[in-house]
Amino acid sequence: MNKLAVVKIGGNVIEDEEALQSFLTHFAQMKGPKILVHGGGKKATIMAKQLNVPVQMVDGRRITDAQNLDIITMLYGGKINKNIVAQLQALGCNALGISGADGNAIQAVKRPVKIIDYGFVGDVTGIHAELFTILLEKNFTPVCCAITHDQKGQLLNTNADTIAAALAQGLSQHFEVSLWYCFEKQGVLENIEDATSVIETITPKQYKKLRAAEIIHSGMIPKIDNCFEALEKGVLEVKIGAPEMIAGNIQHTTLILDDE
Amino acid sequence: MNKLAVVKIGGNVIEDEEALQSFLTHFAQMKGPKILVHGGGKKATIMAKQLNVPVQMVDGRRITDAQNLDIITMLYGGKINKNIVAQLQALGCNALGISGADGNAIQAVKRPVKIIDYGFVGDVTGIHAELFTILLEKNFTPVCCAITHDQKGQLLNTNADTIAAALAQGLSQHFEVSLWYCFEKQGVLENIEDATSVIETITPKQYKKLRAAEIIHSGMIPKIDNCFEALEKGVLEVKIGAPEMIAGNIQHTTLILDDE
Repeated sequence: MNKLAVVKIGGNVIEDEEALQSFLTHFAQMKGPKILVHGGGKKATIMAKQLNVPVQMVDGRRITDAQNLDIITMLYGGKINKNIVAQLQALGCNALGISGADGNAIQAVKRPVKIIDYGFVGDVTGIHAELFTILLEKNFTPVCCAITHDQKGQLLNTNADTIAAALAQGLSQHFEVSLWYCFEKQGVLENIEDATSVIETITPKQYKKLRAAEIIHSGMIPKIDNCFEALEKGVLEVKIGAPEMIAGNIQHTTLILDDE
Repeated sequence: MNKLAVVKIGGNVIEDEEALQSFLTHFAQMKGPKILVHGGGKKATIMAKQLNVPVQMVDGRRITDAQNLDIITMLYGGKINKNIVAQLQALGCNALGISGADGNAIQAVKRPVKIIDYGFVGDVTGIHAELFTILLEKNFTPVCCAITHDQKGQLLNTNADTIAAALAQGLSQHFEVSLWYCFEKQGVLENIEDATSVIETITPKQYKKLRAAEIIHSGMIPKIDNCFEALEKGVLEVKIGAPEMIAGNIQHTTLILDDE
């Protein structure tokens, strides 16, 4: 099977023009089939302020009403996605930007209302693997923004980490998939005060130990849980680290299943 | 050769939610390979006002500075394109939205400055026919917004009529192409006061007569000239009329070369 890299960049890269340029240069040079997934960081909140659109947050999560969905669609699907694509094209990478609606790439349902109504937020239900395999075979590099659709005409704001994991899982029948999460740290740290204390490899066994020792705790737990879920669903490895890790020769954390 | 319809919708359709819905329903039902091309009508000007971005017009043409380009990219490439795609998907049409940067679909150069500097405005130099043939063969329907790129990382605001003509010409080696221009009238009118006086067919010979009689004059001349240029470059026919013409059974104007 061919290898495939699914790379997700966080808001800290999107928000910093220089960091984005540096990342895109490295990304364009990555060999083999690859997919980029991005959100929009704080840009949506800034734009909402400019347009006098109220932003409602509950427990640190944005409520996506119709006006905020429009802003997200304009920014993530329009400005950010198209500029990333144009820059990758200039760097010799045949990028093609899509949302989950394009070619029915990523299907979702509006999150059911339990206690909180998150509005137009999507929970991913499936991906259109054939669309991605066609594009990848023809040497296109899909650049996916964090928007899905419900197949009934409604766009949905969707977590970019989740989209990356869904793509990695959904394409693992066709490729040997590495899932790369680029964020503001160099990896999962042994000691939060020491930026160089990166844990090189985490297996489920070690994960249990790291949780017991409270080295991995609170917000990291659901993230790492999702990574292991992706591995159990066929993804070869998950890499967590700074954007520069995609250029190689820089420490980061790799999550794999036990070699048993 | 397979038939292909390249359909361009004008701002009057984009600006009217009901008209757009009706058009998309008809468009989804059109049989065979098809491409949709759209701009954004007056929506960019409205959004510029909301964001306090000055809009400079010279001789009825917009000057596209960096801020206005951002607005156009957000609206045309983001909000309008992604919502059209999601609605077509709901109607059973496997739409896939792209700008000219995506997959290097439509290449352009920044318009050279002669007397007026139009800013980030693109003059089309070529299309990536292979991208479109791949998508069409796999039953995807490309939905193109009126944005191109210069292959050096710069997005460019580009006339939607020109994009439609460039696509129709560039794909006429692979398909028998009909180019459809949907606008606010039922076609080219014999008498501007009488909306039903649609001229059914115009050949170059008749065009000369219509110009001599000043039935076709001023703003229509460059438009019709462009249509005949497309025909000379291999397009089978150009159809001009109201959006409903794509459903058939409604009068419109067809431009063809003489049967000599």
